[in-house]
Amino acid sequence: MSGENESHDWSPVHAVQWDRDACVLLDQRRLPGEETYLRLETSSAVARAITDMVVRGAPAIGIAAGYGAALAYRESPQGATTDLEARLQTLRQARPTASNLAWAIRRVSAAAEAAGGERYAAALREAKAIQEEDLAMNQAMGRLGAEFIEGPCSVVTHCNAGALATGGFGTALGVIRQAWAEGRLQRVYSGETRPWQQGSRLTCWELARDGIPVTLLADSAMGQMFRLKHPAWLIVGADRIAANGDVANKIGTYSLAVLARQHNARVMVVAPRSTVDMATPDGDSIPIEERPAEEIWSLSGVSGGISGAAAENPVFDITPAGCIDVIVTDGGAVQDPDSGKISELMKDM
Amino acid sequence: MSGENESHDWSPVHAVQWDRDACVLLDQRRLPGEETYLRLETSSAVARAITDMVVRGAPAIGIAAGYGAALAYRESPQGATTDLEARLQTLRQARPTASNLAWAIRRVSAAAEAAGGERYAAALREAKAIQEEDLAMNQAMGRLGAEFIEGPCSVVTHCNAGALATGGFGTALGVIRQAWAEGRLQRVYSGETRPWQQGSRLTCWELARDGIPVTLLADSAMGQMFRLKHPAWLIVGADRIAANGDVANKIGTYSLAVLARQHNARVMVVAPRSTVDMATPDGDSIPIEERPAEEIWSLSGVSGGISGAAAENPVFDITPAGCIDVIVTDGGAVQDPDSGKISELMKDM
Repeated sequence: MSGENESHDWSPVHAVQWDRDACVLLDQRRLPGEETYLRLETSSAVARAITDMVVRGAPAIGIAAGYGAALAYRESPQGATTDLEARLQTLRQARPTASNLAWAIRRVSAAAEAAGGERYAAALREAKAIQEEDLAMNQAMGRLGAEFIEGPCSVVTHCNAGALATGGFGTALGVIRQAWAEGRLQRVYSGETRPWQQGSRLTCWELARDGIPVTLLADSAMGQMFRLKHPAWLIVGADRIAANGDVANKIGTYSLAVLARQHNARVMVVAPRSTVDMATPDGDSIPIEERPAEEIWSLSGVSGGISGAAAENPVFDITPAGCIDVIVTDGGAVQDPDSGKISELMKDM
Repeated sequence: MSGENESHDWSPVHAVQWDRDACVLLDQRRLPGEETYLRLETSSAVARAITDMVVRGAPAIGIAAGYGAALAYRESPQGATTDLEARLQTLRQARPTASNLAWAIRRVSAAAEAAGGERYAAALREAKAIQEEDLAMNQAMGRLGAEFIEGPCSVVTHCNAGALATGGFGTALGVIRQAWAEGRLQRVYSGETRPWQQGSRLTCWELARDGIPVTLLADSAMGQMFRLKHPAWLIVGADRIAANGDVANKIGTYSLAVLARQHNARVMVVAPRSTVDMATPDGDSIPIEERPAEEIWSLSGVSGGISGAAAENPVFDITPAGCIDVIVTDGGAVQDPDSGKISELMKDM
């Protein structure tokens, strides 16, 4: 924590913590109604919790998997290679598409195997390092991003790129936390983020818990909010950043970026360099994942939808680089992103 | 019905019908799961159905109230003035803020009182005339609006300005029906219209029932839809039109208008001249009605909301005249609306 943060009266929620030989997860399925923590003392319990969506957000999943891998070393006697591998495999398969998950398990395993005798201790040190590095990276991005905010002003965010999804500070919400601590922030506006309501369920809960003023609106009310409240910034995370600076993020981000531009608000994307995929030339090369239409229809009381009507449920949208003022990363900030600047950012990766 | 419509294989749903001494209402509370009609044989039953939101949409409420007033004359013997007035008053108070309701009752009463002997017959003739005039006006606006659509193309609508809200054809959906009948339309995109889901519950149901291709999306997905599907028009109704052409309509309309402009789609507002309020100089003079925040929070499983987080639930937003390409009314179409053109439109009213 920086000096500014330490002197500020709040501590962000931790989605994942380590406590006396156990991984402790905030049960995000029960938010915002209940703040319940699950104490998981075995690697298989951690794997099950990841599968069951107790924890969400790629960085937070990776951190939990790291602790799970450490527990696997605790459970498997030295030499019981088959037993250990089975436990690690169970963890790896908990959410097969989350790349942070496999990466964290690989890192913890490598540290344990290199340690010789004290495998559990070495594994646990590495798992804790993964969380600490993520936290430090988010805090650094928070400080860097907050410098762009000439407060006091209001800002807009979308979905949840917060402490709940990371090691404990957040990407977009990390910048917002830091700006609040520095007195640059008046209020955060959050859309509910249909169809999963991460805005109302998670972001409003997380910010209210820290005493940061937040106002929830239906996603469709954001246009009028921009017109009447004059927020200075839209601040969001990213699921993937293409080599030309186009950003894939939660569905609705692009609409907000267009509205921001229309109302002279600036657009900030906050994400570590691991989010940048240099193999993806531009946003149109990113396939738009579709989830079941039922997630939209279910709210209208028609299971299976209305006969003769179609529905589409894209998970994310593409915000072209031209709509983005600055991308804040762990390797520095890129203003008015384009291929050349992203290439320069990634040259040491 | 015009020749084009009669030859086309569909008949729009009727929210309100008259059938052998009874007012028959489609129970819109049960849509889209069930198409159930309630047969109401007394004025008090009609009043209760209006109060209970069996029928919605100002024109449809007015039409139902007209039939209810006719039933009041059927129920009250000539000379039973107190009895009659009590029945009409019950109807008037069914939804006190709906101006069409009082207007329709006044019109039916005046016709009945002028008739002398056959009061019920005269009242019923007038009630039917109200519905027929509304239907004819919507069909005329539909033809006028459809002329602007150089198809075949896709269009976007919002909320429900359809047959369900009117005498049986719709304003925005009247234009869409007509354009479909004339082969100008490929597909309609509809946002779900949080927090009441009129888009998913009503518009998708109404269009699918007529075989018009419709795709439902979360409101937040409309930006990406504009970017990828290139709809040619946004077509919406209006709650109020100010003297300078600014339009108040369901929350979310303004966001869609900005997105339409950004993507070279045109913006059409369809509403009768009775929607224009010359006493309101501009959109900023229209108070933005707020409904309870609970309507937003309830979806996130927190009754009463999250402690420390605010929520706002505005019912409608203002789309400035500068974002509107054409307003289609029963008095003609106004392109690039401004104060002078609206004043000219209203000079005979």
